Amino acid sequence: MSYKAPVKDMLFNMKYLANIDQIAQLPGMEDAGFDTAQAVLEEAAKFNENVLGPLNWEGDKNPTSWKDGVVTATPGFKDAFKQYTEAGWQGLQHPVDFGGQGLPKTIGSAVGEMQNSANLSFALCPLLTDGAIEALLTAGSEELNATYLEKLVSGQWTGTMNLTEPQAGSDLAAVRTKAEPQPDGTYKIAGTKIFITWGEHDMAENIIHLVLARVNGAPEGVKGISLFVVPKFMVNADGSLGARNDVQCVSIEHKMGIKASPTAVLQFGDHGGAVGYLVGQENRGLEYMFIMMNAARYGVGVQGIAIAERAYQKAVEFSKERIQSRPVDGSLPAAGPIIHHPDVKRMLMTMRAYTEGCRALSSVAAAAYDAAHHHEDAETRKQNQSFYEFMVPLIKGYSTEMSLEVTSLGVQVHGGMGFIEETGCAQYYRDAKILTIYEGTTAIQANDLVGRKTSRDGGQTAKALAGQIEACEADLLQSGSADAAAMARRLKAARLAFIDVVDFVAGNTKAHPNDVFAGSVPYLMLTGNLMAGWQLARALLVAQEQVAKGEDVAFMQAKIITARFYADHLLTKVPGLRDSIVEGAACVTALALEAF
Amino acid sequence: MSYKAPVKDMLFNMKYLANIDQIAQLPGMEDAGFDTAQAVLEEAAKFNENVLGPLNWEGDKNPTSWKDGVVTATPGFKDAFKQYTEAGWQGLQHPVDFGGQGLPKTIGSAVGEMQNSANLSFALCPLLTDGAIEALLTAGSEELNATYLEKLVSGQWTGTMNLTEPQAGSDLAAVRTKAEPQPDGTYKIAGTKIFITWGEHDMAENIIHLVLARVNGAPEGVKGISLFVVPKFMVNADGSLGARNDVQCVSIEHKMGIKASPTAVLQFGDHGGAVGYLVGQENRGLEYMFIMMNAARYGVGVQGIAIAERAYQKAVEFSKERIQSRPVDGSLPAAGPIIHHPDVKRMLMTMRAYTEGCRALSSVAAAAYDAAHHHEDAETRKQNQSFYEFMVPLIKGYSTEMSLEVTSLGVQVHGGMGFIEETGCAQYYRDAKILTIYEGTTAIQANDLVGRKTSRDGGQTAKALAGQIEACEADLLQSGSADAAAMARRLKAARLAFIDVVDFVAGNTKAHPNDVFAGSVPYLMLTGNLMAGWQLARALLVAQEQVAKGEDVAFMQAKIITARFYADHLLTKVPGLRDSIVEGAACVTALALEAF
Repeated sequence: MSYKAPVKDMLFNMKYLANIDQIAQLPGMEDAGFDTAQAVLEEAAKFNENVLGPLNWEGDKNPTSWKDGVVTATPGFKDAFKQYTEAGWQGLQHPVDFGGQGLPKTIGSAVGEMQNSANLSFALCPLLTDGAIEALLTAGSEELNATYLEKLVSGQWTGTMNLTEPQAGSDLAAVRTKAEPQPDGTYKIAGTKIFITWGEHDMAENIIHLVLARVNGAPEGVKGISLFVVPKFMVNADGSLGARNDVQCVSIEHKMGIKASPTAVLQFGDHGGAVGYLVGQENRGLEYMFIMMNAARYGVGVQGIAIAERAYQKAVEFSKERIQSRPVDGSLPAAGPIIHHPDVKRMLMTMRAYTEGCRALSSVAAAAYDAAHHHEDAETRKQNQSFYEFMVPLIKGYSTEMSLEVTSLGVQVHGGMGFIEETGCAQYYRDAKILTIYEGTTAIQANDLVGRKTSRDGGQTAKALAGQIEACEADLLQSGSADAAAMARRLKAARLAFIDVVDFVAGNTKAHPNDVFAGSVPYLMLTGNLMAGWQLARALLVAQEQVAKGEDVAFMQAKIITARFYADHLLTKVPGLRDSIVEGAACVTALALEAF
Repeated sequence: MSYKAPVKDMLFNMKYLANIDQIAQLPGMEDAGFDTAQAVLEEAAKFNENVLGPLNWEGDKNPTSWKDGVVTATPGFKDAFKQYTEAGWQGLQHPVDFGGQGLPKTIGSAVGEMQNSANLSFALCPLLTDGAIEALLTAGSEELNATYLEKLVSGQWTGTMNLTEPQAGSDLAAVRTKAEPQPDGTYKIAGTKIFITWGEHDMAENIIHLVLARVNGAPEGVKGISLFVVPKFMVNADGSLGARNDVQCVSIEHKMGIKASPTAVLQFGDHGGAVGYLVGQENRGLEYMFIMMNAARYGVGVQGIAIAERAYQKAVEFSKERIQSRPVDGSLPAAGPIIHHPDVKRMLMTMRAYTEGCRALSSVAAAAYDAAHHHEDAETRKQNQSFYEFMVPLIKGYSTEMSLEVTSLGVQVHGGMGFIEETGCAQYYRDAKILTIYEGTTAIQANDLVGRKTSRDGGQTAKALAGQIEACEADLLQSGSADAAAMARRLKAARLAFIDVVDFVAGNTKAHPNDVFAGSVPYLMLTGNLMAGWQLARALLVAQEQVAKGEDVAFMQAKIITARFYADHLLTKVPGLRDSIVEGAACVTALALEAF
């Protein structure tokens, strides 16, 4: 089925919730106002609808394959990647100095959503390259950056993140890959890395691996990990490609989804040692990797929104075509399209409300990122950074968890047809399941939310957000409509629940860690739910104003209804989660291990 | 991985919640007490653990295949089916008169769970045969039954249900397959049926299709549908097989899961007409089919429990083996098995509580079925029938919906390994998704719950159940323990929410059908949650008594903790659902069709 980019909703978020025209006032962002956003999004929509979208199902039927160390992408991917890079999409958010377009994340994030809706497997390749670029921009030497950045920004070369090893998944302290310093300043890298997304392929001339390894004699644990660039092909002084480096793709995984995206097992240094170049300083690799990973975590959250949007569109299309049974209210004389059935509407509205709520949150967070990086005022930068950092685990965790529910509903709307692979919605269900796992499982995001984002400042950032939500409730009540009043009521109940939980988390993380971490994922789900609901509450207020002005009335009314649905059907989950977290911790860890 | 049948939990349910020894007092059930149950379950455990379980993953790797109309089951299946029938498992619950063992559903249901845990694809074949047997027992003529029943009960022949057509899924009124009466009393059947589970295969000598079709001149809609037996091979007077009937398998579907179970497209009557035999009377087909379908719906609910159990066992096994990170409470000196992490325990406890809750409910419902069919007192039969019928849509709907969450958590516990097919848990996730769809989607179950089970008697049955739950709360409070008090509190909140919703449903189904059906699935989920929670509350009371007596203390303590977890983490979802249903109906159907 075809994909249609939700340009209008994205522009609504940018204009009214993320205030794109304020971003255009930031130094270096002068060209990034609403008109630019609109032009870029319309161009991106064309490319993703016409080039990447139609290849998505092909990637599932005909996965990227491995033979004798050579990985061949799904037919059509190589050509699509050529078009992608030639059009300059890889450099959208990257510095003009290295050939990028220097656009804000607020725009880049929406384009990223489109790419992932169109073709999740494909979009992973540029997503990983983005991560490699971030890491080099943060910590790469001038020489390294001169050698690699321009080619990565253009997409001529692609990037990877090499963290995981068989014994080291979430636990990076267990990384064993070795790095031996050489007299010429390079390092010899040896070890096995697994789960390396687009770790080997034929779409680009070179692949730049960013690899975590331990320099001989480094401290144990995470404090002894360094970050290296290991190119697939050595790069000559003139920028041309030299000999093949000692890194081999020994296999790719047989996965439940994202089958066109090769998940490589990479063997470094089996034939004398792979040549690696230190990024930044020794033993600070994890710190750099986290920069890369935080960008990637936000990006994976957007993948959740993207796959939810695609599943929603497909379900809507089917439910308008499929004829079954007469509506219960007798509104049609005979059997009609299933979208007339209230339960089908409930499923579609659930999908829609989750997707729009998370999209709004991701847009607002992206704007905070832009302000955090470009605002002239240090205090404003700091506040925005703190807002953004609080939101990253929520965007990653909540948007991907909701995508499981949304893609499942997508199959459900299709009934028996949904279970047949050729229908297409099963692919979204299968693809989505990786999103709650990679770049840190939901539990890892929840640890981040509990530890770094809540306990560390005693819940201050969280409470400040609650204050902003309370102000929004007042605005809603003042607006006087029944929809706004209902939203205010649900938001208040959710906010009070949130405050209870924040107090519980901040007050017990040190003294009763088991009790807090027993509820860490529910805390993430509660908070993500509230934050997305808050953004839809803001959207509701805007939409009411626009309706009053007679502007774009149909769209604005739909936004009000969607927000109201979110309030009555999703925010209503929050108080129950509070009870589980605050009152239900003990029984989570009570069972003896041998009783499981 | 290996499967271990939860015999102990099943026997606990039978003994304390379903009162198996009372079932043994029913006429004709004299041999069906606890000792029989134990012996049968232990034998079934061996067979399912050793024969069917090991074939499950093979079925996913090497699906049953179609070539030129011939369907060949996954290697090993034919032999396993031979062992299955030779051991007499097909006849477990069927009448002694036709060669069955005549055991109660209370035992049969537990054996069914084992079969489905061991191998969902395989177990579908006997499940469908059970349905065909039920339909014949209900409405088949003496002659038909003499010809078919014994062979079906022995498993020498298998049965199918042919309802769905391309234009007729949930909407059976749209069935178009034709039946033309012949002078000899048979009918010529012509039409296309799709989604026919085990509709063609090589495991049995003959396949007995039960087919919905319209006799020429029959009324429109569901009142003009008749039920026919259409054997794959004609049966001679002496019971031997004759010529091939005119029914062909033209293809099988390419599905997301249950890949060893062929889903056939059957073409009837392309070469002169398939010979069919009327079951019961003309135009009463839907009524008979519902008997068959109600048995199958209960059976599919048990499939949900079964796949949840298997996913749970696999996740427990992995979490005890996989070493990652030091526990947050410092209880281990270094990285340890991930089961030490509170969030992993939360996931495992969620899986366990859902599974045990739904298993308890299915056991109690099965006992009611047995009493409804065998008790001497008509009023007792009626009460039990009403209880059973109320529970069927819940067991089907809630147990299968929860199985989606449980199998998803199963993958999540495995982290990245979960997404790799060879690990095995992805198969459970893919397999489970059909369960909320076939034999009536969750929405169809919810329609049944709203219409026939709640509105028809003005909520009387539902309110009577609430009364029983209230009595259980009193028992809990009287018992004096903190766990029982917590359970009583959650149960009460859930019960009050239930009563509100029952009033809303019973009061509005006719006047405001859209409002009621907008919340029909949430109503089903709320009610299923409450009823399963109630059974675990009963289990908690029993377990406390047993602990006090020093009986089987470890098992009983685990039951208490699991029940408490259910109370604090699952029952807590109920009040929020009430709010969505009672206060949130309008926004479900408010959006204009063109706005989707």
